[in-house]
Amino acid sequence: MRMGRVIGSVVSTRKDPKLVGVKLLIVENLTLELEPEGGYVVAVDAVGAGFREVVLYAAGSSARQTEQTKDRPVDAVIMAILDQFDVGGRTVRLA
Amino acid sequence: MRMGRVIGSVVSTRKDPKLVGVKLLIVENLTLELEPEGGYVVAVDAVGAGFREVVLYAAGSSARQTEQTKDRPVDAVIMAILDQFDVGGRTVRLA
Amino acid sequence: MRMGRVIGSVVSTRKDPKLVGVKLLIVENLTLELEPEGGYVVAVDAVGAGFREVVLYAAGSSARQTEQTKDRPVDAVIMAILDQFDVGGRTVRLA
Amino acid sequence: MRMGRVIGSVVSTRKDPKLVGVKLLIVENLTLELEPEGGYVVAVDAVGAGFREVVLYAAGSSARQTEQTKDRPVDAVIMAILDQFDVGGRTVRLA
Amino acid sequence: MRMGRVIGSVVSTRKDPKLVGVKLLIVENLTLELEPEGGYVVAVDAVGAGFREVVLYAAGSSARQTEQTKDRPVDAVIMAILDQFDVGGRTVRLA
Repeated sequence: MRMGRVIGSVVSTRKDPKLVGVKLLIVENLTLELEPEGGYVVAVDAVGAGFREVVLYAAGSSARQTEQTKDRPVDAVIMAILDQFDVGGRTVRLA
Repeated sequence: MRMGRVIGSVVSTRKDPKLVGVKLLIVENLTLELEPEGGYVVAVDAVGAGFREVVLYAAGSSARQTEQTKDRPVDAVIMAILDQFDVGGRTVRLA
Repeated sequence: MRMGRVIGSVVSTRKDPKLVGVKLLIVENLTLELEPEGGYVVAVDAVGAGFREVVLYAAGSSARQTEQTKDRPVDAVIMAILDQFDVGGRTVRLA
Repeated sequence: MRMGRVIGSVVSTRKDPKLVGVKLLIVENLTLELEPEGGYVVAVDAVGAGFREVVLYAAGSSARQTEQTKDRPVDAVIMAILDQFDVGGRTVRLA
Repeated sequence: MRMGRVIGSVVSTRKDPKLVGVKLLIVENLTLELEPEGGYVVAVDAVGAGFREVVLYAAGSSARQTEQTKDRPVDAVIMAILDQFDVGGRTVRLA
């Protein structure tokens, strides 16, 4: 999984039928210093993530292992909203 | 998923039997400023995307989760055409 | 999928039993200008591709969705030989 | 698999139900000289890895092949703690 | 698949139970000129590869398609030892 920040969302009316009702968010990849890393992904929101929240997303076939994504043509899912992380002895609170 | 722009198509007569009737489009990766990112993918069109449209594509095994791609040897599928996206408080209309 | 050019082949006698009879080709990645992109992949040939031909290959689990590759430990398959492609209004004939 | 060092952990209360009870660690990628390579991954701990230990992690669908990760939306798992490795005739003891 | 050279091995006693008896080798990626490409992978040896041999490895779910790796949390497998390869009209003998 990678850490990212929710920075937006996409709207689509012409899409595969299996995508109806799926919420798609834009997530920018973050470094461990919470700086943008220079890439982004569009991921299904499985946890009700809000704008600017720091999340974890899973990619590949693992992205289809939630109730919201099962059997759907999606390759990334937000599966956790982070409260805090600890890295190198430093604690970063996010909530 | 990644955002891309449909910039072309490919034609093949000698191909795996499972690819008969599959429409293959060339999609260039886009940044969130809608600039080409420097890479491309050839993806199955599952939604009737048109030339120059901005789309989402899914890669890997997830690309086989549409009716058009099930059990086929394809690793990328266009599964949505974007109407608009919102990023960092900015709304970008595409349709 | 990615576009590539067949530039060679590999020979192996000590290999996993599931690879017996599988033809393995070396494919260099191509840009849309048909220039080498700087990487290569070794892929199973599922379509009878010839030396210097421009092909499409699929990677990951999708590479196992042909008759030649089913259940085999291979992660890339050539599943189409290109006749032509159209990009940005330009038509490139290959056959 | 890749070698990495456990450098931290993440805490999340709002997450997919399948993630309850799963321990998520931050792993930085290592070169064979045990230097940070510049990337990181958040991985499920399947082996009781400790802070600063050098581990192996598996990514993609293979990450779901442990008892702790089966059917869960996770794309990386720590599946071994390294005691030593030998590279180019040099032995590096870690435990 | 990618070509690589076996440059070492790893030893682990604390590991997922499914890894018992699995031989893990360190493989450096090679260019077609047999130069190190700057990356490495730790892969299961399914073919009895020796130190310094040039091999092919498969990654992702395909890495679980050998008898040695079935259902195991591993994402790379050495599935062939190369005898020779031909590239651009040049033949390189390895055995």
